[in-house]
Amino acid sequence: MSSINTFASDNISSACPEVMEALAKANEANSPSYGEDPWTRDLALRLGEIFETPVTVFPVTTGTAANALALSTLTPAFGKIFCHELAHINTDECGAPELFTGGAKLIDMAGANGRITAKVLEETIYGSGNVHHAQPASVSITQACESGTVYSIEEIEAIASVAHSHKLSVHMDGARFANALVTLGVTPAEMTWQAGIDVLSFGGTKNGCLTAEAVVFFKPELVGDFPFLQKRAGQLLSKSRFISSQFMGYLADDVWMRNARQANAMAQRLSKGLADLPGLELAYPTQSNEVFVVMPAALIDRLSANGLAINDEELDGKAVRFVAAWNTTESEVDALLAVLSDHCASI
Amino acid sequence: MSSINTFASDNISSACPEVMEALAKANEANSPSYGEDPWTRDLALRLGEIFETPVTVFPVTTGTAANALALSTLTPAFGKIFCHELAHINTDECGAPELFTGGAKLIDMAGANGRITAKVLEETIYGSGNVHHAQPASVSITQACESGTVYSIEEIEAIASVAHSHKLSVHMDGARFANALVTLGVTPAEMTWQAGIDVLSFGGTKNGCLTAEAVVFFKPELVGDFPFLQKRAGQLLSKSRFISSQFMGYLADDVWMRNARQANAMAQRLSKGLADLPGLELAYPTQSNEVFVVMPAALIDRLSANGLAINDEELDGKAVRFVAAWNTTESEVDALLAVLSDHCASI
Amino acid sequence: MSSINTFASDNISSACPEVMEALAKANEANSPSYGEDPWTRDLALRLGEIFETPVTVFPVTTGTAANALALSTLTPAFGKIFCHELAHINTDECGAPELFTGGAKLIDMAGANGRITAKVLEETIYGSGNVHHAQPASVSITQACESGTVYSIEEIEAIASVAHSHKLSVHMDGARFANALVTLGVTPAEMTWQAGIDVLSFGGTKNGCLTAEAVVFFKPELVGDFPFLQKRAGQLLSKSRFISSQFMGYLADDVWMRNARQANAMAQRLSKGLADLPGLELAYPTQSNEVFVVMPAALIDRLSANGLAINDEELDGKAVRFVAAWNTTESEVDALLAVLSDHCASI
Amino acid sequence: MSSINTFASDNISSACPEVMEALAKANEANSPSYGEDPWTRDLALRLGEIFETPVTVFPVTTGTAANALALSTLTPAFGKIFCHELAHINTDECGAPELFTGGAKLIDMAGANGRITAKVLEETIYGSGNVHHAQPASVSITQACESGTVYSIEEIEAIASVAHSHKLSVHMDGARFANALVTLGVTPAEMTWQAGIDVLSFGGTKNGCLTAEAVVFFKPELVGDFPFLQKRAGQLLSKSRFISSQFMGYLADDVWMRNARQANAMAQRLSKGLADLPGLELAYPTQSNEVFVVMPAALIDRLSANGLAINDEELDGKAVRFVAAWNTTESEVDALLAVLSDHCASI
Repeated sequence: MSSINTFASDNISSACPEVMEALAKANEANSPSYGEDPWTRDLALRLGEIFETPVTVFPVTTGTAANALALSTLTPAFGKIFCHELAHINTDECGAPELFTGGAKLIDMAGANGRITAKVLEETIYGSGNVHHAQPASVSITQACESGTVYSIEEIEAIASVAHSHKLSVHMDGARFANALVTLGVTPAEMTWQAGIDVLSFGGTKNGCLTAEAVVFFKPELVGDFPFLQKRAGQLLSKSRFISSQFMGYLADDVWMRNARQANAMAQRLSKGLADLPGLELAYPTQSNEVFVVMPAALIDRLSANGLAINDEELDGKAVRFVAAWNTTESEVDALLAVLSDHCASI
Repeated sequence: MSSINTFASDNISSACPEVMEALAKANEANSPSYGEDPWTRDLALRLGEIFETPVTVFPVTTGTAANALALSTLTPAFGKIFCHELAHINTDECGAPELFTGGAKLIDMAGANGRITAKVLEETIYGSGNVHHAQPASVSITQACESGTVYSIEEIEAIASVAHSHKLSVHMDGARFANALVTLGVTPAEMTWQAGIDVLSFGGTKNGCLTAEAVVFFKPELVGDFPFLQKRAGQLLSKSRFISSQFMGYLADDVWMRNARQANAMAQRLSKGLADLPGLELAYPTQSNEVFVVMPAALIDRLSANGLAINDEELDGKAVRFVAAWNTTESEVDALLAVLSDHCASI
Repeated sequence: MSSINTFASDNISSACPEVMEALAKANEANSPSYGEDPWTRDLALRLGEIFETPVTVFPVTTGTAANALALSTLTPAFGKIFCHELAHINTDECGAPELFTGGAKLIDMAGANGRITAKVLEETIYGSGNVHHAQPASVSITQACESGTVYSIEEIEAIASVAHSHKLSVHMDGARFANALVTLGVTPAEMTWQAGIDVLSFGGTKNGCLTAEAVVFFKPELVGDFPFLQKRAGQLLSKSRFISSQFMGYLADDVWMRNARQANAMAQRLSKGLADLPGLELAYPTQSNEVFVVMPAALIDRLSANGLAINDEELDGKAVRFVAAWNTTESEVDALLAVLSDHCASI
Repeated sequence: MSSINTFASDNISSACPEVMEALAKANEANSPSYGEDPWTRDLALRLGEIFETPVTVFPVTTGTAANALALSTLTPAFGKIFCHELAHINTDECGAPELFTGGAKLIDMAGANGRITAKVLEETIYGSGNVHHAQPASVSITQACESGTVYSIEEIEAIASVAHSHKLSVHMDGARFANALVTLGVTPAEMTWQAGIDVLSFGGTKNGCLTAEAVVFFKPELVGDFPFLQKRAGQLLSKSRFISSQFMGYLADDVWMRNARQANAMAQRLSKGLADLPGLELAYPTQSNEVFVVMPAALIDRLSANGLAINDEELDGKAVRFVAAWNTTESEVDALLAVLSDHCASI
């Protein structure tokens, strides 16, 4: 890949060595299947330690599946899921939540910097018990969110409080969970169940795994029919150890935090560099490993002509996204800035 | 795992070295995501060579997903899928075909040794065009089938002929495709599209991969909305190379055939040994890597008490299943036979 | 319609005068909508009297909707519904149960004279708690059944007992409920909840209404989300009084029983007459208002050529169905017998 | 009902005499079922005359079913349906479009007076061909719309033009079709297919029928699998003549237009009267048979205390809805205005 496209997404990155080693080790001998393997059992214990509370864990293969399956346990077919209008579940999953819930409605809300507010949520929830309306059932927030910013603990608490007061469950899409954790400097417990999160999509793929996502339940009473829903969705791997072992490598020692710190630091370096370039403007504050920058159309055209694959997740045609990963280096950041600087200067 | 449980299923086996090497190699550098990587592109070409015709290929993570997605492109929500009563899609996928098709009906048929016949299929198809009836849409056969036997080319041709005469599409569940190929000694083309198969679930997981399945279309006009259905199902991996590279290692040279030959040979060795034991009887001819044996209830109880996990895929409580894999050894077979022989003698 | 086709189905019959009068009366003034009208409230009370227990009642417009909605409250999307292979839900609803349940599987069973047995049901239920299998959830029987015979109270009790012992709910498709009641000479309570029926599709359309079906719950705890499921299915009429008032006319005094007695009596007259004709043979005992007769292919062809619309609900191409309705007369029966007699004689 | 609640909705009104007479006449003798009756056949011809083009017609029982079934033929399970945020399909059908389409997403848009604009539609459609996004498939507008205003022919043409340029189909929810027609003074053809409408939900229930809705296709190639989808949805009546005959009475001579003229005239009388009351303000222009008025909270409370059932379709807690029907009289309007005037004066 050209250096310029190294920032296309964190899903282009390779897996980190610790993950690959754990996988190779898990492959040394035969092992029971369908979640009966030692790695899957250990994963639940390990996540229990990390979250400081017993959790129920289901490994799956994609973030889309994690989100849609989690929501399908919280939301009936005639239910409403409240989310930000830019939420991945709303814009980038081709209807997966609708499929897995059997037809639930996503009720999207505007909100600055990609985040919903408790106030707008409160105003948007209505119709409970009225048979004409799809029924409010769950709220989903993304942490770090799709605009690269991070909900504060207080914001999460306020949203969860509104949700719970209406008997709605709260889901967190944690595709970039570790990146948010690094930014906030809080514990996993503080950012989730202690703030009111009921179910978490815990992502590993973007931060150093090959393919590793997990649905983490903090309340056993919400697990419900998840095992059947997971199997029915084709998300129960026979060789389950190959996701769980990745996670065990990822969560050993400081690996996942180290990866996220590097990605965030490189995003900060890039963000500062971009802000200094003439004609460029950050679309959102840079709070995780994603940087969104508004640039002149002429510059976008120029860059495209030179091989930059402009991600269509860019927002309303204006902000261009650059994403740093666990393996992004300072020299890659500086090389990108140099290219952009050259082009900016010549426009 | 105890030696006795080594034969619980081929999904307890590790991945073979060639697959692990290909995976490690694919991880060396960053790469485009969502199927734009070189491995995914090469996989389509490689399968085109193997099947001697251009194919459209979609890697997915489980056999259940492969089957259900393939069928969902062939079958409307008000459609009928015809299959054997023991078909994996009918008994072991917890409703995945129903989910992904939006509610299609599986019409199951009896048939000796786990295989349907063209004659029974012809008698079972009815109601086309009648608005009261779910509409005949597709046929699915499993090769090698759930009873461990293999459809002959003539049988496949006859079934496909009936199906096509009624304008039904034909799907093959190839979770153990390589094992069947070894048994028949035919080419992949002869066992699929040349015999009338329209879409194939091509399995790698049970025969030496970590997690690698693919939906292979032999007719471009049947692909339809598959890309959207796959994404919606949470089956489009961002790091798509991690399935495709496994397949590339698996399909390089003779690896997949070598793996299947070993599994089949060990199953034959086991089958012959079991047939010689007093009080045991093969439930079906052994034609791939699965052996089904009818044994006295007292023996089953004895074995269970000694740690044998009797697979509940056992058929109507009578036949016990033993499965050989690519890494099963002669000594493991002989050890199992010795244990069984001891127990048989003492009952 | 030609006299010969008067017996095509009981759904070709007009509504009886009492139903039309009740409808006209309900139309005299404006009235609240969506079930808030007096007729809908009275209907629940009236059915409570008839069934000698409080019931929860939801009027709907078709038997297909009644069945599918009732089953959707009893069966999760990954559930199994056990029924006879000839059940209307299995063969004549084009996948409605699958749609409304979100993909449940109908597990069909053979059984003499169109009826399942407790014994076969017991043998067919398996897999509870096993994540690979769709989960046993409900049983549906049709009374009178699709072959025109009637379950005895003892048969219903035995089936319900097996179902409940496995924690399955029991649904009765009562499209011809009144006809069965007349045959058995028992009370509505005895034929339903006292025998173990949990939910009933109570049919009026075939026995003297225009369009009037109702889902009747005998256990409040099973109602669950029905109101939302009904609305979502487009089955909550704004002018709800127009179904409820039909039922109030139908259930006033003896109207519904009178209608069913007439239909059954005419079926008996026809059945006896057919049994006396040379070359004809009853396919099933005549126990309600449907008569199934096996006749030579040459005779079927002759009749078809003379205008008889052979119903494709005929069973496996052999038995021809004749149905008597509330308004069938002796002279119509005798006219049909005369025509058949002539044709039989000339073959 | 108290006079004050006569304006709660047009669905509280009785059926008009011509409809009841047609129904009674259709009940005089037996008739074929499932759409094979003469009334259903005649209905297609009659609507063909009215729309000046051959049409394909499917009678159904509710507007919700008509809308959801129509949209399900135009929209795949992974599709997007574009509509106004106040559209009945979006707010008052408890997820029916999602159920019948298998999970399509409703993309709602703001728009003055309850109507979307071609401009906003153009800006909102994106993502065609991108596998991450649900796919733009159809547009639905309501005529007269949920705010009681009416799209001009030019507005419909502009919306349809944008839709068709993106290969989207256009659906019209015509629950109050006749009312809009009277307002615009155009022909049914001009307001539908000549302006670009592809499929129409043609409502009769609110304007003088008991229960009569129909899906009308203007393009045979769009009918697709509708007959199967209708049956599967429990919307194919066995006694189909009882909807079709209502429509035949409704569409005979000038009945439907006469009914709509009366409703609209009474709404105008009410609207003018309300505008003259102190402290009240019309929320939208009155262009059909619905009047929305903003009134002080104290007045709403007062009216509620005196028996006015404030409809929760009121918009954001401010506008109260009054609906005139075919049988609303001048004296009823004047009586309502007198009551309101008294209360206004005393606040």
